[in-house]
Amino acid sequence: MGERVYVGVDLGGTAIKVGLCDAQGKLLQTYEGPTGTEHGAEVVLENIAQYVRKLVDESPYEWEQVAGIGAGIAGFMDIPEGFIKLSPNLGWRNVPVKKILEEKLGKTVKIDNDANVAALGEAWSGAGAGIPNVVCYTLGTGVGGGVIIHGRIYQGYNGMAGELGHMVVVPDLEAIECGCGKKGCLETVSSATGIIRMAKEAVERGEHTSLALVENIMAKDVFDAAKTGDETALRIINRAALYLGKSMAAISVVLNPQRFIVGGGVSKAGDILFDAIRKYYNEYAQETAKEGVDIVPAVLGNDAGVVGAAGLNLHS
Amino acid sequence: MGERVYVGVDLGGTAIKVGLCDAQGKLLQTYEGPTGTEHGAEVVLENIAQYVRKLVDESPYEWEQVAGIGAGIAGFMDIPEGFIKLSPNLGWRNVPVKKILEEKLGKTVKIDNDANVAALGEAWSGAGAGIPNVVCYTLGTGVGGGVIIHGRIYQGYNGMAGELGHMVVVPDLEAIECGCGKKGCLETVSSATGIIRMAKEAVERGEHTSLALVENIMAKDVFDAAKTGDETALRIINRAALYLGKSMAAISVVLNPQRFIVGGGVSKAGDILFDAIRKYYNEYAQETAKEGVDIVPAVLGNDAGVVGAAGLNLHS
Repeated sequence: MGERVYVGVDLGGTAIKVGLCDAQGKLLQTYEGPTGTEHGAEVVLENIAQYVRKLVDESPYEWEQVAGIGAGIAGFMDIPEGFIKLSPNLGWRNVPVKKILEEKLGKTVKIDNDANVAALGEAWSGAGAGIPNVVCYTLGTGVGGGVIIHGRIYQGYNGMAGELGHMVVVPDLEAIECGCGKKGCLETVSSATGIIRMAKEAVERGEHTSLALVENIMAKDVFDAAKTGDETALRIINRAALYLGKSMAAISVVLNPQRFIVGGGVSKAGDILFDAIRKYYNEYAQETAKEGVDIVPAVLGNDAGVVGAAGLNLHS
Repeated sequence: MGERVYVGVDLGGTAIKVGLCDAQGKLLQTYEGPTGTEHGAEVVLENIAQYVRKLVDESPYEWEQVAGIGAGIAGFMDIPEGFIKLSPNLGWRNVPVKKILEEKLGKTVKIDNDANVAALGEAWSGAGAGIPNVVCYTLGTGVGGGVIIHGRIYQGYNGMAGELGHMVVVPDLEAIECGCGKKGCLETVSSATGIIRMAKEAVERGEHTSLALVENIMAKDVFDAAKTGDETALRIINRAALYLGKSMAAISVVLNPQRFIVGGGVSKAGDILFDAIRKYYNEYAQETAKEGVDIVPAVLGNDAGVVGAAGLNLHS
């Protein structure tokens, strides 16, 4: 039968990316096509099935070698049942993804939420390869996360383990409201959205900053300005880093992971961000807990989702 | 051979408590004797061996039924090796506890730190019985803790998982130094030491409080004053509860445990403390993460240590 391979599906609102991995998490081949969200769940699931078949057909591997299929999806779900309760960005409610895909493809299908799956990808064969206990942050529009314990995604009682963006870290009097309804969540300051908001506010109140010349400020503009020494931009990145570092220090006396991995668009800020995160982590983390612990950038980029999804059948 | 039983050893600075448990964590019999710390590690370990033999001799169980022995010890240790690197309160450095006790007793011996062992006791057959994922706080002189995942103690990379007293939770400008060298640790406000300090400071600055009449303020005096409506005492307990509740809210988006268990002397404050902890937990915890999650008092009291120690051979 030959080597076993695993298929991962990264189901996004506009594109579906599928990938083939070996048993070590090496990404062998990918294929991408439109999601077709507007046509409803039935069409989207048929698209997934077609892309998966195409992926394997165009690869040097036989269909029989596919030992399992995994999918990362944004939304609320019953993971053991493979059932999507609600996915706002796909417009889905009560979709039995596992059941339908297993019928279409004749293989075991596992699903998990997209942030957990990306964390598993990095932990398995990315920045956490070889390390059993890691905590991953994804700094994008929001702040997502994933907790990997003994090489597996840790879900927690309500599946909310690793929802790091909703740790309340900003002191009450400086806290603003988060999308979740609480105030002072990490996501309000350390996401791209938070960084852009802080930059716009600084421009509006007339701070002396090069960002005033930028028409539609993006997080990258703030990083670029910081690299030229712009004080407003530096202060904003410092603030984003402060609360990331503080949240990692807190996690160090709860879980004491060996490594923190930081990915997502905001992590592209590079050393200027990571140096600041490490500075604050060192300031707030208990001495013994931080010995030998490092904070590193994610390395798989957009592939983390397909790799982690492929890994669901090996690590759950 | 009959039913299997397990021996737990709670090694304190002044007394050694040993107990016999069945495989369900029911404490069947206990025996207690002086530690003899002043005579050094050799004598202390011989005392443990004698008390364990006495415990079993005086019980209705045969020595052959003892399936394993566990010990909870305060200090820094190599848990798999059963080796104490440093125990300040016993004055020990580099003591191979597991090896020596196994030679003396001819049974498998496992050790772990006292806070973890107490957490395992509560999780196994105390306030967490039947619940696989719990986080325990012990509010005593300091604030200890333990993380139980899938019914087992979770150690983390440096054995610092569950060191909840050293989560930095107090805002910088209100933070005081902790024994660990950092500032603003949970332990500085939510331990008996923290509560007593806040009470003494209030008296010293002349606050109108019934605590001014107490000669040597203990934590219990603060609880008693709070129950009579003393505003200073209520404010102090509220502050201790605020940071406990906030730390639990943070843990809920990292691990999302099903239950938080709070034990130790300070937990004797009862409803006045627990109601406030729950209030702040609800204020800061993400909505989905807290569904069905509760915060309850520990129930085993001083027996948690021997029960958890007995459980080390079943849950590690």
